[in-house]
Amino acid sequence: MISKVKNAMSNLVGGMMPHGHHHHHNHHAGGAQTCGPDGLPPRFPYGRPEFLELTPELLQYSTEHASRPVLTLKRGSRLPWRTGYAEVINAGKSMLNEDQACCEKLFVKKPSGKHRNSTLGLILGKNVSAFMFPSQDGTGIPLHFWGVFDGHAGSGAAIMASKLLHHLIKDRLGEICHLLENPSSAPPICLAKNGNPFQVESKKGASQEPEDPDAVCDSSVRFYMEKVVSLESLIMGVIETAFKQMDDLIEKEKASYAISGGCCALAAIHLMGKLYVANAGDSRAIIIRNKEVIPMTNEFTPESERQRLQYLGFLRPELLGNEFTHIEFPRRIQHSELGKKMLYRDHTMTGWAYKTIIEDDLKFPLIYGEGKKARVMATIGVTRGLGDHDLKVYNSNIYIKPFLSCVPEVKVYNLEENKHGPDDVLVMGTDGLWDVTTDRDVAEAVSTYLSCCDPSDPMRYTLAAQDLLMRSRGVLKERGWRLANDRLGSGDDITVFVIPLVGHETDT
Amino acid sequence: MISKVKNAMSNLVGGMMPHGHHHHHNHHAGGAQTCGPDGLPPRFPYGRPEFLELTPELLQYSTEHASRPVLTLKRGSRLPWRTGYAEVINAGKSMLNEDQACCEKLFVKKPSGKHRNSTLGLILGKNVSAFMFPSQDGTGIPLHFWGVFDGHAGSGAAIMASKLLHHLIKDRLGEICHLLENPSSAPPICLAKNGNPFQVESKKGASQEPEDPDAVCDSSVRFYMEKVVSLESLIMGVIETAFKQMDDLIEKEKASYAISGGCCALAAIHLMGKLYVANAGDSRAIIIRNKEVIPMTNEFTPESERQRLQYLGFLRPELLGNEFTHIEFPRRIQHSELGKKMLYRDHTMTGWAYKTIIEDDLKFPLIYGEGKKARVMATIGVTRGLGDHDLKVYNSNIYIKPFLSCVPEVKVYNLEENKHGPDDVLVMGTDGLWDVTTDRDVAEAVSTYLSCCDPSDPMRYTLAAQDLLMRSRGVLKERGWRLANDRLGSGDDITVFVIPLVGHETDT
Repeated sequence: MISKVKNAMSNLVGGMMPHGHHHHHNHHAGGAQTCGPDGLPPRFPYGRPEFLELTPELLQYSTEHASRPVLTLKRGSRLPWRTGYAEVINAGKSMLNEDQACCEKLFVKKPSGKHRNSTLGLILGKNVSAFMFPSQDGTGIPLHFWGVFDGHAGSGAAIMASKLLHHLIKDRLGEICHLLENPSSAPPICLAKNGNPFQVESKKGASQEPEDPDAVCDSSVRFYMEKVVSLESLIMGVIETAFKQMDDLIEKEKASYAISGGCCALAAIHLMGKLYVANAGDSRAIIIRNKEVIPMTNEFTPESERQRLQYLGFLRPELLGNEFTHIEFPRRIQHSELGKKMLYRDHTMTGWAYKTIIEDDLKFPLIYGEGKKARVMATIGVTRGLGDHDLKVYNSNIYIKPFLSCVPEVKVYNLEENKHGPDDVLVMGTDGLWDVTTDRDVAEAVSTYLSCCDPSDPMRYTLAAQDLLMRSRGVLKERGWRLANDRLGSGDDITVFVIPLVGHETDT
Repeated sequence: MISKVKNAMSNLVGGMMPHGHHHHHNHHAGGAQTCGPDGLPPRFPYGRPEFLELTPELLQYSTEHASRPVLTLKRGSRLPWRTGYAEVINAGKSMLNEDQACCEKLFVKKPSGKHRNSTLGLILGKNVSAFMFPSQDGTGIPLHFWGVFDGHAGSGAAIMASKLLHHLIKDRLGEICHLLENPSSAPPICLAKNGNPFQVESKKGASQEPEDPDAVCDSSVRFYMEKVVSLESLIMGVIETAFKQMDDLIEKEKASYAISGGCCALAAIHLMGKLYVANAGDSRAIIIRNKEVIPMTNEFTPESERQRLQYLGFLRPELLGNEFTHIEFPRRIQHSELGKKMLYRDHTMTGWAYKTIIEDDLKFPLIYGEGKKARVMATIGVTRGLGDHDLKVYNSNIYIKPFLSCVPEVKVYNLEENKHGPDDVLVMGTDGLWDVTTDRDVAEAVSTYLSCCDPSDPMRYTLAAQDLLMRSRGVLKERGWRLANDRLGSGDDITVFVIPLVGHETDT
């Protein structure tokens, strides 16, 4: 069964991958030779993260569902902060590995006149080489970015996000660069067009301006409530709005390119001594400090976001297309149960109560299923991420997108205020990792592995990532992929970053 | 200033209080002699909790804003579980004490034919004495109830809730009494009208019933997803829906009675070894176990519920009446700032970002102010509770109620699974207590106080409640009510329960 899927796939991969026959081209400019279902070219060609430096042969090899080879950073390659990385393809659920990853060091700079909105301009234009090689003269505020993107229903959105999200974040930070350079003072509440703080002018004497009816005399202005906003929450806002911008960009570019599917997005940003971990989906990040787990994300699934989704369905029933009910029941209702009482809960409830079943309750529930099988409108198992703009309920005209959120939850960890040893790390992984390995097990495995490793080995974090990945993938036995305890391993794509929290002070 | 408010008040109290001249009447049937603004009689007359057994003179005395006497349970009185209680009126912000409290032991029973829906029937009818003295023959499942109700804009809703909420909960539990009596098996998902589990009948052979298009053949029915719902979550659902029922009842009875204002509601229910703490508003409950704090509630305020409120305003802008914007700004915007950039956050954001100010942003923000001064539409500082059905934005036709939720958050504490000493307690208090005393300080004060107290003194928990209350009220000095550290004491009504977690096994 696995090999059958695999054979069908490898033929298709051969045709889809730009490397198969064109590996002498700049592959960022390539990939337009194959087209999506609407005859549009892909926005970016399929590939694996550039830092893996895969040859076409290795890229082809990476798609072997039967053997599921683990790809890691090559010995001799080096990511910022000595970051460790490992990935593996799924056991056959999709032809290509729909996970993507990104690890980059960038510099936040004031947008100069001609480079204003540079990334966006270049994304929309064709000046790809200039975009791919932004000036890296080492000036500006250093920013480190790690992202894992878990695609579904195609890899287009995940690839695009892995190529662009960090640039959007960097550009938006550039717009507030003058505030970042002065971290000791709180950001001004109001800015003039030139970016300077804007002060309402004194209106002593007769004013010609139309009066705000709520305005009070100037002397009392200072008694107005005025919230103090921290620089940290401004950076959080930048990240939140960059995710939204990324999502809007996918929607916009779908007019010109084939960008398939959607993706969960998990990003870690290091800026000015703090780590910002932003999560939209069911990937997960934990910090392991002195062998203890510090969770840095919550997952967003139909179960964890049930009440938000039900509330939207309740307030905007037209989005349910007369096919779904926002009320949750513990199972499907049979027609013969009309008039009986059944357990239910609505958007306000955490507990369950009985209600008399009416005709409307026979509709399919907006949220249905348990655990990994829970789905929104019988379609999707995650509730946050990027893309999915044309995702519809099967055989209907009902769009899923209004129920999905592209906004990440951002948690902040102050790296400078905490002491770390060489075995303290941030682990980021797609759900393939965490489905079969608990936070606790990951922490134990990483701590044990690193403590046995030569501290000066530059590969130690990659080896730890590889070890983690093997614990979730398992090994192929007669009865499928099995873990050491003989339980079923993850058949999903798996991507893992293991990022050390010290030792990068002199990192360039 | 305080005495001025007080003089105006005491005249009114004399007229409003049924006890002043009618204390020989059953005061539950009385109180109709004074009327609300629409000429309607009050649903229940003003008073203090019955267990305080106040004489008319003491009731009058309890309203002295100048001296703010602390009322406690009398020596010799006894509440279930030796519960301690203390209360004090505000420093002049309202004429009457708008807090109310309730402590009752009830018995959950199957509704018999003629008593079905007894409480509701009696509430709506006039058979008040029968309602106030339900059969207490000691059969049924014992239920203990404690409630604190912090009223605003009048005491009508708080009084009504303190008289009825526990009966609604008891009655709804009565409906599932046969399930409570069999706690080892999970509640059936579907019930027939007689309350028995309903099983979909086998449809072998030709069926005359109209077929559910989604129905599958019977043999596969058992493979359907079916969630297991615990008895605990069914009890949570009962409590959640009882709060909703209470709120609906207030709305309904406002047609016939004057029921002023709204109230925060905090209830603790002990049933079958577990403590269910349900909170709708800004009251707070903590368990103190071995001197450690276990928070049992979250507060619901414009700040804590900002995103829920903004989301509603975003999805239903008509509820904002063209006067308010759902977007939050750190301060009011001046007309002269149009076209400038200002910090903002919408319903999706936790951080802040800059946006260009447009005409629409000049509207007043839906959420405005900080901390205790934060308000929804410049009107109300709590976002959950009962009542408030006719509360409008000042001088407008915009209702606040759609933004308020009557649904409590319910937390469960398994009393039987934890070991407790005689100084381990549940503390419930209105915001007047917690505004000036932290959880930590409360825990220290109670632990210290109880450890110095004779363990056999039945008054020990009431004395601890009194001590707590004094720490928040302070003493009257030249410059107002002052705490031991000379900071300002709470000028609000304060109500405190201190409930021991052991020693009630033989409680009748």
